[in-house]
Amino acid sequence: MKIKNTPENTLERLIIYLKVLEALEKKNVNFISSEDLAKSCGVNSAQLRKDLSFVGSLGTKGVGYSIKSLKYSLKNFLGRAQEWNLILGGISPLGIFLLQDKTLQKEGFYFLAAFDTKEENIGKIYNGISVYSLDQLSYVVNAIKVDIGVIATEEEPEIFLNAFVEQGVKAILNLSKVPFFVKNSEIKIENFSFSMALTKLSYFLKE
Amino acid sequence: MKIKNTPENTLERLIIYLKVLEALEKKNVNFISSEDLAKSCGVNSAQLRKDLSFVGSLGTKGVGYSIKSLKYSLKNFLGRAQEWNLILGGISPLGIFLLQDKTLQKEGFYFLAAFDTKEENIGKIYNGISVYSLDQLSYVVNAIKVDIGVIATEEEPEIFLNAFVEQGVKAILNLSKVPFFVKNSEIKIENFSFSMALTKLSYFLKE
Repeated sequence: MKIKNTPENTLERLIIYLKVLEALEKKNVNFISSEDLAKSCGVNSAQLRKDLSFVGSLGTKGVGYSIKSLKYSLKNFLGRAQEWNLILGGISPLGIFLLQDKTLQKEGFYFLAAFDTKEENIGKIYNGISVYSLDQLSYVVNAIKVDIGVIATEEEPEIFLNAFVEQGVKAILNLSKVPFFVKNSEIKIENFSFSMALTKLSYFLKE
Repeated sequence: MKIKNTPENTLERLIIYLKVLEALEKKNVNFISSEDLAKSCGVNSAQLRKDLSFVGSLGTKGVGYSIKSLKYSLKNFLGRAQEWNLILGGISPLGIFLLQDKTLQKEGFYFLAAFDTKEENIGKIYNGISVYSLDQLSYVVNAIKVDIGVIATEEEPEIFLNAFVEQGVKAILNLSKVPFFVKNSEIKIENFSFSMALTKLSYFLKE
């Protein structure tokens, strides 16, 4: 695996630039100055230019950035020019929501299978995606290329984490309330919960 | 509003420490050494101690941290010792999931009202929470103390953002795919989408 040199904060901003460009494209905007793009992304234009130097994208003086071309460069850089196969761990309400959400497919993220430990959920089908017993994970991982494992349960999320890691899943989105960390630099875990995001706001609001 | 001096990265780690402590408490652990806590949180113990100095919490030599007491200090520091009133913008599948999710209430986050712009959704009730027309926002904001506005729609999320900000909502969790930024330092917006989180993983996976 290639060593990734982009600092985490820069990476987060690059993703924001991509998202803002996608929104501008939907509004049929073709070009944008670095000042205007920076403003829409909550940064100054020096920061924007510095960040985009990681991607190798330079605007044209007097014209600014071509939205189509910058979006293309960012998608390539961020691994969003290709499709990724996802598996879900945990048939929770959040898990069912994700299986049924069709907007992720439009962005190239495809759930191919779901796993649960509860007998009553095995064999169910959501949006065409079958629920398997977690015991069957190794068979599924051998049969299809699995890129990302998404953990969407509060009930023993570590069971899914351990099973995913053991079966060689390299990228994990952990949506349970308990954040997980691994020392292995070959594995990347993204921890997110609504509770964590709301706590950032409660800190801000606290008098 | 008090000026908040905690750097964003420190704040994010403090929230992780709280979440990990909550998980340990559920497992009936009473004390933990700074080394073990740091390891569970994906940092080294020097970083942990430095971060906890913001909270004013010091462990006891040879005993480590009392989980109950450190959790208490962190909850106070992060504004999680009190309850917060939330309103929802957008009756999307994600919005309905959030209204029905009871785990957020356990953490002190209470949805009191939901808003939508579509006639057919007005008057519906989810988990005891009524859906109002966005036109009625000012009446609701006058009648109840609203702390946090949560935007959960991909259809014109800026309509909800603008209405929330105009009615004086100071903290916004934006779950739409388009990140928003405001210059006003009295207002805090947290942008999160599953797509953004998955893109961090696709960047990691990209060869």
